Amino acid sequence: MGRKKRSARLAQKRIMRVTARIIRRRGKKRGAAPGTVIHTGEKRIERPRITLIRYDAQNFETAEVEPADIAGCFPPPDAGRVTWLNIDGLHDTELLHQLGQLAGLHGLVVEDIVSVGQRPKQEEYEHNHFIVLRGLRYDEASRQIEEEQLSFVVGPDYVLSFQEAPGDSFDSVRERIRLSRGQVRTRGADYLAYALLDAVVDEYFVVVERIGDRLEELEQAVIENPRTETAAEIHHVKNELIVMRKALWPLRDLFNTLLRDESPLFTEGTRVYLRDAHDHAVQVIDTVETMRDLSAGLLDIYLSSVSHRMNETMKALTLIATLFIPLTFIVGVYGMNFDYLPELHWRWAYPVLWLFMLGVGISMFVWFRRKSWL
Amino acid sequence: MGRKKRSARLAQKRIMRVTARIIRRRGKKRGAAPGTVIHTGEKRIERPRITLIRYDAQNFETAEVEPADIAGCFPPPDAGRVTWLNIDGLHDTELLHQLGQLAGLHGLVVEDIVSVGQRPKQEEYEHNHFIVLRGLRYDEASRQIEEEQLSFVVGPDYVLSFQEAPGDSFDSVRERIRLSRGQVRTRGADYLAYALLDAVVDEYFVVVERIGDRLEELEQAVIENPRTETAAEIHHVKNELIVMRKALWPLRDLFNTLLRDESPLFTEGTRVYLRDAHDHAVQVIDTVETMRDLSAGLLDIYLSSVSHRMNETMKALTLIATLFIPLTFIVGVYGMNFDYLPELHWRWAYPVLWLFMLGVGISMFVWFRRKSWL
Amino acid sequence: MGRKKRSARLAQKRIMRVTARIIRRRGKKRGAAPGTVIHTGEKRIERPRITLIRYDAQNFETAEVEPADIAGCFPPPDAGRVTWLNIDGLHDTELLHQLGQLAGLHGLVVEDIVSVGQRPKQEEYEHNHFIVLRGLRYDEASRQIEEEQLSFVVGPDYVLSFQEAPGDSFDSVRERIRLSRGQVRTRGADYLAYALLDAVVDEYFVVVERIGDRLEELEQAVIENPRTETAAEIHHVKNELIVMRKALWPLRDLFNTLLRDESPLFTEGTRVYLRDAHDHAVQVIDTVETMRDLSAGLLDIYLSSVSHRMNETMKALTLIATLFIPLTFIVGVYGMNFDYLPELHWRWAYPVLWLFMLGVGISMFVWFRRKSWL
Amino acid sequence: MGRKKRSARLAQKRIMRVTARIIRRRGKKRGAAPGTVIHTGEKRIERPRITLIRYDAQNFETAEVEPADIAGCFPPPDAGRVTWLNIDGLHDTELLHQLGQLAGLHGLVVEDIVSVGQRPKQEEYEHNHFIVLRGLRYDEASRQIEEEQLSFVVGPDYVLSFQEAPGDSFDSVRERIRLSRGQVRTRGADYLAYALLDAVVDEYFVVVERIGDRLEELEQAVIENPRTETAAEIHHVKNELIVMRKALWPLRDLFNTLLRDESPLFTEGTRVYLRDAHDHAVQVIDTVETMRDLSAGLLDIYLSSVSHRMNETMKALTLIATLFIPLTFIVGVYGMNFDYLPELHWRWAYPVLWLFMLGVGISMFVWFRRKSWL
Amino acid sequence: MGRKKRSARLAQKRIMRVTARIIRRRGKKRGAAPGTVIHTGEKRIERPRITLIRYDAQNFETAEVEPADIAGCFPPPDAGRVTWLNIDGLHDTELLHQLGQLAGLHGLVVEDIVSVGQRPKQEEYEHNHFIVLRGLRYDEASRQIEEEQLSFVVGPDYVLSFQEAPGDSFDSVRERIRLSRGQVRTRGADYLAYALLDAVVDEYFVVVERIGDRLEELEQAVIENPRTETAAEIHHVKNELIVMRKALWPLRDLFNTLLRDESPLFTEGTRVYLRDAHDHAVQVIDTVETMRDLSAGLLDIYLSSVSHRMNETMKALTLIATLFIPLTFIVGVYGMNFDYLPELHWRWAYPVLWLFMLGVGISMFVWFRRKSWL
Repeated sequence: MGRKKRSARLAQKRIMRVTARIIRRRGKKRGAAPGTVIHTGEKRIERPRITLIRYDAQNFETAEVEPADIAGCFPPPDAGRVTWLNIDGLHDTELLHQLGQLAGLHGLVVEDIVSVGQRPKQEEYEHNHFIVLRGLRYDEASRQIEEEQLSFVVGPDYVLSFQEAPGDSFDSVRERIRLSRGQVRTRGADYLAYALLDAVVDEYFVVVERIGDRLEELEQAVIENPRTETAAEIHHVKNELIVMRKALWPLRDLFNTLLRDESPLFTEGTRVYLRDAHDHAVQVIDTVETMRDLSAGLLDIYLSSVSHRMNETMKALTLIATLFIPLTFIVGVYGMNFDYLPELHWRWAYPVLWLFMLGVGISMFVWFRRKSWL
Repeated sequence: MGRKKRSARLAQKRIMRVTARIIRRRGKKRGAAPGTVIHTGEKRIERPRITLIRYDAQNFETAEVEPADIAGCFPPPDAGRVTWLNIDGLHDTELLHQLGQLAGLHGLVVEDIVSVGQRPKQEEYEHNHFIVLRGLRYDEASRQIEEEQLSFVVGPDYVLSFQEAPGDSFDSVRERIRLSRGQVRTRGADYLAYALLDAVVDEYFVVVERIGDRLEELEQAVIENPRTETAAEIHHVKNELIVMRKALWPLRDLFNTLLRDESPLFTEGTRVYLRDAHDHAVQVIDTVETMRDLSAGLLDIYLSSVSHRMNETMKALTLIATLFIPLTFIVGVYGMNFDYLPELHWRWAYPVLWLFMLGVGISMFVWFRRKSWL
Repeated sequence: MGRKKRSARLAQKRIMRVTARIIRRRGKKRGAAPGTVIHTGEKRIERPRITLIRYDAQNFETAEVEPADIAGCFPPPDAGRVTWLNIDGLHDTELLHQLGQLAGLHGLVVEDIVSVGQRPKQEEYEHNHFIVLRGLRYDEASRQIEEEQLSFVVGPDYVLSFQEAPGDSFDSVRERIRLSRGQVRTRGADYLAYALLDAVVDEYFVVVERIGDRLEELEQAVIENPRTETAAEIHHVKNELIVMRKALWPLRDLFNTLLRDESPLFTEGTRVYLRDAHDHAVQVIDTVETMRDLSAGLLDIYLSSVSHRMNETMKALTLIATLFIPLTFIVGVYGMNFDYLPELHWRWAYPVLWLFMLGVGISMFVWFRRKSWL
Repeated sequence: MGRKKRSARLAQKRIMRVTARIIRRRGKKRGAAPGTVIHTGEKRIERPRITLIRYDAQNFETAEVEPADIAGCFPPPDAGRVTWLNIDGLHDTELLHQLGQLAGLHGLVVEDIVSVGQRPKQEEYEHNHFIVLRGLRYDEASRQIEEEQLSFVVGPDYVLSFQEAPGDSFDSVRERIRLSRGQVRTRGADYLAYALLDAVVDEYFVVVERIGDRLEELEQAVIENPRTETAAEIHHVKNELIVMRKALWPLRDLFNTLLRDESPLFTEGTRVYLRDAHDHAVQVIDTVETMRDLSAGLLDIYLSSVSHRMNETMKALTLIATLFIPLTFIVGVYGMNFDYLPELHWRWAYPVLWLFMLGVGISMFVWFRRKSWL
Repeated sequence: MGRKKRSARLAQKRIMRVTARIIRRRGKKRGAAPGTVIHTGEKRIERPRITLIRYDAQNFETAEVEPADIAGCFPPPDAGRVTWLNIDGLHDTELLHQLGQLAGLHGLVVEDIVSVGQRPKQEEYEHNHFIVLRGLRYDEASRQIEEEQLSFVVGPDYVLSFQEAPGDSFDSVRERIRLSRGQVRTRGADYLAYALLDAVVDEYFVVVERIGDRLEELEQAVIENPRTETAAEIHHVKNELIVMRKALWPLRDLFNTLLRDESPLFTEGTRVYLRDAHDHAVQVIDTVETMRDLSAGLLDIYLSSVSHRMNETMKALTLIATLFIPLTFIVGVYGMNFDYLPELHWRWAYPVLWLFMLGVGISMFVWFRRKSWL
């Protein structure tokens, strides 16, 4: 019982934390001038880590860059070389401000990068493209989706990527560049941007699958052993899907404008790949919507199954009472103290009464059955 | 009882398997370079089967092609001859890669063909058109819809079709070509593509009709004998409709862009037929939506009918108890042992009491009736 | 009771038949070549009846045409004369095929005319316009909406109309032509087409009014005497509205494209009238949607009223039991056989106990009242 | 009790009449030729009343016109003079027909004016603009919204307005013209049309406020004293909102096309005012939608509050029974007549038993409390 | 108990006041000529306060202006100087009328400024831009959102801002101008307008966060200690979200037209900032919608948790009764007074009966457990 209760409590705790994740705090930012660079998230890493990768079809170099040496990362634009600068950790606003000026970013872009509650969007500026979206990760321990803000700035021959904390989402892309797998080395910065976007979308599938696993477990639980915490768990999954939906729904719009606004930064060849990433995003959104339908249906099944059980229990208990109440009345009759109560003096009254009561009991039982109350 | 339980359990098992079908696993693909050809489905057939059909108005030839001889299937483009290559089984990625290169397919197309969880879509490439959609089949044994991914590549004088497993959906088209029935022999590859699409959409009608049959049975069951597994079955049908909806809804978009983007591959004459296929698809979607409404209504009827029954039972049981409780009180009164309880010594007290209790019982009964509680 | 049950059963039977009407069988058509003319409905009339009407401002002639003489109905196009050919009964596919060739119809048009489960739509062809929509009729006996497919082919100087069975929808138009009432004789085939469409839409109003009558009866029943079959009837009306909705919703699109695509077949003058028919169609759709809202509200009222009654009953019954249970305990006390139970020997114990119990009963009654449980 | 019942009955009567108002009867019109002028409403006034107002910046004349003298109202178009003809009462179709011909109205316009179930719309004709919308009025006595059809024909220098019955909606405009308040005298017929439209929309605010008052009363009732008729009243308000919604929703479209289609009849200056009227209409629609949300929420509160009360009652009653049932068992034990039942002969058995039973009672009470069942 | 009741009552009071806030009274305005300047709100401040700020990159002056000296605030347009006139308090219609004439405002603009129930919108006029939106503030004491109408008129070198009551929303902007922080001093009136809009949107985030806090508290309450007033509080939050939604939803449209209609008043540089404000607005709307989903889910959890508790209570109570009813029957049997009732005379009958009853009780208990009714 104790374990069961703990598990129920845990399930409920999880529901509780949803609002906190949905409503991002911005408190300290209120009233600041636009373009003010204030980090609104938690500090998730001690000091920012900057990784530089520079490559063309033949060459590949990678380096960890010190925040102080950031200026050296922007060499004169040499045709054919792509520079990818990945920054983990967004709390060093000074660094980001400096980076913004080096790369010629609009003040609002730097502000958006560090305000970690952005809605996914893409914005075209004169010299570069700004894309911000949500990185999702399913945390097995807490059974929760963890969100992170991911921003990209795409220039003619560079890509800047920003993460709140170091993660492994981009490792596969890094590997592909290093090993010159696929086309990434022979194509420009726009293809690199696509590859990073695609890696993010790929993570969504993983999250969707994990939530799908939870749904499957819950389907089984609902049917085989519906318990109070099952409902809490379904509500938890529903809430996770609300979180996902909020993070993913704007992607449709993001990709649509990216594909429609014929920005010169993205070549026709890369656009085909972006269309593919768009299809994947729509696929994930579709699946999330379908899972919302399924979880709603699951809750319906749970509720009707619980109410069915409850009804059956109450019916059974009421039946028992109903069987004995008339019998109690009968024995009450012969407990009366009338002077003239002839049956009391009959020889076989007692056993006959037993038979009679048995008959009454059986008749009621049969009647209940025929009415299919039993 | 045992059979009833088994049937209920079976109904529930079916619900359970829905999530698994909705969320397609892509696990092993995560992080791969775009264009990587990895089959994400189960292997449903031992080795791929390739069928070649080549025809014009006068000639018709058909052959089973060995994977090794695939290169021979692409002869120099000879005007007027249409080549249809049907591939059953998608796990031989080597073959598909080779085929993709022979036919000049974009890397993403080959990738999409083997990633079997695609959302229906159509894409225009320079030399060909790629169409992917879901083949549906109603499995009578498991009472489930089975999904399969069907892909088409339409070129100026060829059509490539890909199925996960051999099926009979295209048999009717094959027959029509062989027997030169209808216009298929006198028209080009675009008409063949339409004919295949139309055959797929035709299958949807069959599935819709089978689910319609289920709904009809459930309508009857709900009214004549609502049981626990009836609810499970309704939920099952609702889930099947969710599955269908996910597979069909994007078709509207697919056909709309196919008709609107005036691709030179599709002639004006064929476009009229595509419009017809579009109408059929919309008709199926309409019907699925209507069936969703109906099944929701059905569940409402079921629930209110079950709750009505339950209420009637509880009322009847409570009525019995209520009838006897006052009577039990009365007999209790004369079971008291007071020294001075005059009625105990009256001569006709006992029979009079019976009459009185009868009177009380009948009055209550009449009163209950008048209140229409009975 | 017997009559009540029969009426409930009838109400339920009606619900049952909805799915059958929604999902049109197409079984035998599966796999046929497009353009194949197969009648998918029931044969509702022994042999098709063809009525020819030909008129201009001065002249009017009408004739029943034998299927064999159909070729004679298409005279050389003589300016100013409008030919209206009405065909009742669609199972003679041979005749329709022939008619299609005489009038130069596309194969798909003829196919659509006889596939009686079409979604309302309009299609523009080179020489004519094809319009298909649903004729609705409220059958008083079965209290059901009966659907029929109505197709129109509009050419420069002719209109072909097709009905599944002879009906009186077009009688008013026929009369107007014969008596030269309104403008129909002075205008072309496009106006005739409009007049026929308008007649069909006019029928919708009749159906809507009949369902409105049903809703009004149900409103009254719900308030005055809610019974089990009332719920069944509301569900029946809801289902009828689902049927209507499916038939009417596409009309909006039909008229919109008809008005927007500036087909030369429809003159500017007639277009004004088509806009009016469009308004009427939208009005009907609006009303159907509103009735859906109303019927949903009605079901809510019914359910809450039934549950209110049930609750009141259970409360009353429980109150009776609760009144007597403490009293039964008291008399039980004095039924005990203790040697030393002083009250038993008091002179006035018995009457005093009665007074006491009366007091307890009244106090409880008053308390219940004050708690407004009674 | 009697008054309460009457009030509940009244509340229910009101619900009943909603369908009748939603579904406008058109019975007698079916099958008539388009353009046939048949009045479909009730005759609300004995004979039509025609009011003529003619003004320019300097002059103002007003007159009651006899139906026979209607022809005299259309003088030769003299620049700068605006003629406003208001007709109350639509059953004199002869008059309207004549008026239609004098003003050069399309046959369909006259038909629409007298068919009083029109959906709000605006139509542009060659020489004039036709606008039809619903006039709403909240009837304090019946607590219902009363609808009326209002039509306007706007020409280059005249406005015709049609009402089903004389009302005071236009009095304020009349006064403004007479007293030359605002700009109405210095602007053309298009501004007059706007002023009339604006007056109609202004009435909507009044109705919305009255329904808002009802909602506020119901909010109070639900919280302080939820009774059966409260639910009926909420349903009544919901239905009134459905009525309003049907009347108002199309306004959005009406104003949008009016503003977008740059009709020469409406000057740029007037268009600014029309945009303002449009904003007001959207504001009303917004409020109606919000009130729908509120009333749905209110019903939820009512239902959960009623069910809460019911549950508390049943729990209390069951608690009383549960307290006494074990005690009744105990006294039953000592009512047994065994020869060897030692307790019966103990000296203090009876008072000890009382103490014991008191102890049992108190323990159960405490236990119930701790379980917070009490 | 008393405190609990008071808290519940308070929670309910709050719900009650929602309608009043949603439906703004306009009573006294009905029938007035358009452009009539009538203040429809409450008088929130004794006399209007006018603050003048005039600046360019170098200079900054601020002054409190007397209503009488208003004319002096509009100096000849001197390039580069931006004038910001903030008016707190809208009831002095005379002043506003005068101000309107000085600034050349359209009559409808002045009317809209003082009619405080406007829907957020923006309107382009020849010489200026009019923007009206809702200022929101979360009142900690009443736990309610307080609304205020904020209007802006943006001219080529001036901004007029109107508030119903003095507030601190614009203090941060004022400070930024004074201290020449950010870009506000170096940019024109359009940037100032943006800065004010942005300050308003920033306030929305604060309100959203406060409501988020409430939701979090309720989440905790629902899980740990669901009480009646919890439901009332959830309904309260739901209503607050309805209020927010009504105020925010039109913002999407406002910003979209502002960005799309390329008004010359807003420079390209400022437009980038407006796009940012638009993103923030959409972010708030998204969050409000998500919170609506969450609060609906919360109510579901509350209701199912309450019903679960109720069911458990009733089951427990019924179980107790069911345990004792058969035992009461048994002791009733041996309370009968038959002459020949052999068990009564057995030596060990009484203790054996106790054992038997104990056995019955335990068996039932075990049976209940096995049925998991306990």
